[in-house]
Amino acid sequence: MTKPICLIIGAGAGIGGNVAKKFASHGYHSFLTRRSNATGLNALIKGIENEGNKASGKIVNLMEEGSIEELVTDIETNLGPIETAVYNLGAQIGNHTLENTSHKAFEMGWQLGCFGLYRLAHTLIPIMKARGAGNILVTSATAAVRGNKGQHSHAAAMGGRRMLCQSLNAEFSSAGIHVAHIVVDGVVDAPDTVGRLLGPESFTKLREKLGGSKDGLMLPEKIAETYFHISQQHRSVWTHELDLRSFSDSAWWNS
Amino acid sequence: MTKPICLIIGAGAGIGGNVAKKFASHGYHSFLTRRSNATGLNALIKGIENEGNKASGKIVNLMEEGSIEELVTDIETNLGPIETAVYNLGAQIGNHTLENTSHKAFEMGWQLGCFGLYRLAHTLIPIMKARGAGNILVTSATAAVRGNKGQHSHAAAMGGRRMLCQSLNAEFSSAGIHVAHIVVDGVVDAPDTVGRLLGPESFTKLREKLGGSKDGLMLPEKIAETYFHISQQHRSVWTHELDLRSFSDSAWWNS
Amino acid sequence: MTKPICLIIGAGAGIGGNVAKKFASHGYHSFLTRRSNATGLNALIKGIENEGNKASGKIVNLMEEGSIEELVTDIETNLGPIETAVYNLGAQIGNHTLENTSHKAFEMGWQLGCFGLYRLAHTLIPIMKARGAGNILVTSATAAVRGNKGQHSHAAAMGGRRMLCQSLNAEFSSAGIHVAHIVVDGVVDAPDTVGRLLGPESFTKLREKLGGSKDGLMLPEKIAETYFHISQQHRSVWTHELDLRSFSDSAWWNS
Amino acid sequence: MTKPICLIIGAGAGIGGNVAKKFASHGYHSFLTRRSNATGLNALIKGIENEGNKASGKIVNLMEEGSIEELVTDIETNLGPIETAVYNLGAQIGNHTLENTSHKAFEMGWQLGCFGLYRLAHTLIPIMKARGAGNILVTSATAAVRGNKGQHSHAAAMGGRRMLCQSLNAEFSSAGIHVAHIVVDGVVDAPDTVGRLLGPESFTKLREKLGGSKDGLMLPEKIAETYFHISQQHRSVWTHELDLRSFSDSAWWNS
Repeated sequence: MTKPICLIIGAGAGIGGNVAKKFASHGYHSFLTRRSNATGLNALIKGIENEGNKASGKIVNLMEEGSIEELVTDIETNLGPIETAVYNLGAQIGNHTLENTSHKAFEMGWQLGCFGLYRLAHTLIPIMKARGAGNILVTSATAAVRGNKGQHSHAAAMGGRRMLCQSLNAEFSSAGIHVAHIVVDGVVDAPDTVGRLLGPESFTKLREKLGGSKDGLMLPEKIAETYFHISQQHRSVWTHELDLRSFSDSAWWNS
Repeated sequence: MTKPICLIIGAGAGIGGNVAKKFASHGYHSFLTRRSNATGLNALIKGIENEGNKASGKIVNLMEEGSIEELVTDIETNLGPIETAVYNLGAQIGNHTLENTSHKAFEMGWQLGCFGLYRLAHTLIPIMKARGAGNILVTSATAAVRGNKGQHSHAAAMGGRRMLCQSLNAEFSSAGIHVAHIVVDGVVDAPDTVGRLLGPESFTKLREKLGGSKDGLMLPEKIAETYFHISQQHRSVWTHELDLRSFSDSAWWNS
Repeated sequence: MTKPICLIIGAGAGIGGNVAKKFASHGYHSFLTRRSNATGLNALIKGIENEGNKASGKIVNLMEEGSIEELVTDIETNLGPIETAVYNLGAQIGNHTLENTSHKAFEMGWQLGCFGLYRLAHTLIPIMKARGAGNILVTSATAAVRGNKGQHSHAAAMGGRRMLCQSLNAEFSSAGIHVAHIVVDGVVDAPDTVGRLLGPESFTKLREKLGGSKDGLMLPEKIAETYFHISQQHRSVWTHELDLRSFSDSAWWNS
Repeated sequence: MTKPICLIIGAGAGIGGNVAKKFASHGYHSFLTRRSNATGLNALIKGIENEGNKASGKIVNLMEEGSIEELVTDIETNLGPIETAVYNLGAQIGNHTLENTSHKAFEMGWQLGCFGLYRLAHTLIPIMKARGAGNILVTSATAAVRGNKGQHSHAAAMGGRRMLCQSLNAEFSSAGIHVAHIVVDGVVDAPDTVGRLLGPESFTKLREKLGGSKDGLMLPEKIAETYFHISQQHRSVWTHELDLRSFSDSAWWNS
């Protein structure tokens, strides 16, 4: 019997990879995609398979025209129904003054933060709707709920993402499609994203300062538990939006 | 060995009773309190015990001075540490025009909606803080995030409740106290509250229209699963606020 | 011919007194009330009269039962119709830990922050409604939109105040009653409130650091201009909520 | 002596044209731009000149690369300093299901709703910053604060616009740049936008139902008064966000 598919858009060693692992351990076939680093992708897949669970994946640049559309069709045709899709592409590029935010950077933020999710929804939701069920879990960020210095591209992208999630729920929740907007309000212990943004030295320092038993960095394997919970909520009690942050961090409205 | 205590403030046959049951089934001793109806209380306790789990409870009017304070001290002294407290007192009295909202009704809303939670926190948080851990799960309502016609007392109470939750988190989350503000944005299939508010006839009609397999009424046993999940979140990934509603209902910002 | 009345609840040398002055300079009879300091009250009234405008006032403890009700009746009977009421009672008592927030302090916050506004509305809105018009301008605070450490009493009070304003608008805006919730998100150059809270020495230092041509303290006479503008908005374009802060300060969502 | 310039991006017979008129009547030189309809543009300019005030303008497609940038440079070089810019391009295209929201429509929403404002800010703010002062007034919509059925493109665009405004304020308010995000939460009596969207017949019906002395349509000449007020606020008391709606309409959170 085919396992239900959990498609991960943006599967690195942080939230994406851990969500893939979590779903696979509960009987899903996790399909992992990322833009680059086939070695990293294969390591994530092997890790899941080594636990006796099911995963596969693909390197794909989802910003290319037709790519998301093809990916969805391909999975639905050859692997099985996508029950849950996790849109986990970030658009955080660090702080840049307005002056240093190029037209290209501003547009790229929108492509990753907003247009990609629209394209996924545009392709996948009609298919889910025909089945009367489906989850789209959307990783989001503080910038979705408040702008800040240097966050011009990111905040514009994420603010759009949040309103798009609300529009999708308003149109499709009664058809059985559950879209959850998950505000990740803090720094995730994620070498592939935060690590790359900070550089190895700063990331090591950050881990020493906040990580380990201090639990000041958000552990992606723990975030994955909440993603999974949200995907399993009974349809009479769906969460549309929730926030997540470390106990030792301030909420965005306090910092 | 003593089980951790889950104290339920406001345990009827809806969210409160079901949360009690859920926690008990995961190794907690649930302590149920409600203002009246000893028969109902005992039925809930028996139900939990019949599943081989642990529960006890008490009829107590928490609006009386000293009552919450005494209750907490009593449990901590004689039963064991309260690991999770669920503040589940509602202040919904149905729609009343401003003219028909008496001074007493307005004050009662605040007593139940806001002051009671402050009193619980004032008594319990210092104890939890000394242990470096504890959960306070707060049932809230649409009225906490937007006012509406006829909701003067309720909205003022719940708006205060929400801001109090944020203040508590700002002061105590780094000390290990997790306060979650849970926006129940819809009608719960709860005979003791919604049922009483509507009267038996209307409630039966509502259940026929929205309940059963239609899943248009929020099932309290399913809500309980999310309460439990929130209480078990790793401290690096705490949720401060989330919403819950039926798939077939509109979100508060759309209706 | 009688001038329209602008009733100020909470008229010190900050927002209240300046709003009184502004309305009086535009043809209103400003009626100023405050709890104490008859000398201060008289100085404000004299200041307005010296500009050739109309003002009177009264020392009254509005927390006393029946006081607001009597005040409104008295003005309506003896002076003329209250066209605009400004609810300007604050509930900021500085930062106090939860432990140091007494039951009394928590209740007092609610009395000033929330119950008083309900009482004003309960008394005055039916009268305004019969005339098909009226403004209630409500001074509010950052604490109405986010809780914070030490702000337990204040945030609970102001969160309730905000939701009450929304409920009043939802019920009465179509009857011609305009309720505006004005989020004063910063420190006002107000000797009677901020000055008293900080003490004369700290207040002088603050003024040196942020005041004068630095414009880091919010000037109450400039705030008054926006209050007046809001009261004059055509009924096809009413503002329900707005924020105010100094250009040099961070918005609450950034700090 | 040169008059200060008020640049209007999107000047039809609704908010844009009326804001131009209002600023011109207070000593500004209003510069009106719109994508098409030179006749309409000239009529607006003539109307202002006939009152003895100063206006000029240009037909320009601001979605073209370099157009906004050139426009700003041109005005600054040849006319004088832009003291206030009004970004009034809408992105409302009516309700379209997700299925009927093409990639192009989604991108066009972002271009108008979000990218254009970024481009204006990117070009103009450095110039304003060098002068230590400037206003950017941004017309926004309900869709900036909540998504809805059929609003996928519009809500994603406006949600991004709002977060961009917050980011701009966070970076530049202390440099004297005032960005105001104005949530127009209702239907404006604007033949060039709402009228075109509805078609002449429906628009006439709407006007009969809600317009005239009923004041259920938002009058753009009254909206202009609030725009002007915001632009004149003293820098110690700036409004970053406010909402506007007709007294007879429900606020977005109630409908």
